[in-house]
Amino acid sequence: MSSDIELDHIGIAVPNHNSNSTFWKVLGWDISKVSTEIVEDQKVKVAFLNTKNKARLELLESTSDESAVAKFISKRGPGIHHICLRVKNIDGLLKNLKSAGIKLINETPVLGAHQCRVAFVHPSSTGGILVELSEGTK
Amino acid sequence: MSSDIELDHIGIAVPNHNSNSTFWKVLGWDISKVSTEIVEDQKVKVAFLNTKNKARLELLESTSDESAVAKFISKRGPGIHHICLRVKNIDGLLKNLKSAGIKLINETPVLGAHQCRVAFVHPSSTGGILVELSEGTK
Repeated sequence: MSSDIELDHIGIAVPNHNSNSTFWKVLGWDISKVSTEIVEDQKVKVAFLNTKNKARLELLESTSDESAVAKFISKRGPGIHHICLRVKNIDGLLKNLKSAGIKLINETPVLGAHQCRVAFVHPSSTGGILVELSEGTK
Repeated sequence: MSSDIELDHIGIAVPNHNSNSTFWKVLGWDISKVSTEIVEDQKVKVAFLNTKNKARLELLESTSDESAVAKFISKRGPGIHHICLRVKNIDGLLKNLKSAGIKLINETPVLGAHQCRVAFVHPSSTGGILVELSEGTK
């Protein structure tokens, strides 16, 4: 059963980008050589670890104690924060999800990393997973 | 920064495969048409949702109250249980991880879904993520 959706990335909340760098290094990713980007809206600095099939690991380091990522780590400890699915028509999809009774955190897209238009779906409608939908080029 | 590792799948603990089927349906996956497989070793029935870039979502339904997935749901509720990275030489990689001081749940591979050789890495060495390493064909 396939959909034309792509798994874009897994967002991982980390105390800082160098946390567990030994583990990532043995797997083939040298964190010290990964470029980073600040996402002002979400108060995070992100580093992307690319994989061969283009589904990335996004290390999320908080830039403020008030960020969602800082609160997540404070409550649960570091770990998987969200998954991101790449979709074709985010406006149409959000409309369809809302019509189906799915609880949306963003009913209209906001700006995410790499200037993509993104929207989050509430975990109560997805089985406990914070799902980011993203439209745009990588 | 790229590695030749692939993100094979995200394992999602679900009460049953039909939980939140409306959400998956709007995204393009009809759960009722997805084939399932029992993984005896782990006491789960799995259903794979394929994506365009081959990184799958694996819905994990427990077949026993004693399974790791049943215990996970009982403790934390449904949600992301693990991520699986597809690797080329699992024996060599496990050896390198152990040498680097990474805590392994399986020091030698066991049999997972689709007869792949798999091994789990302990979340204490990965930043709170249960990481499955898998070698084999999909």
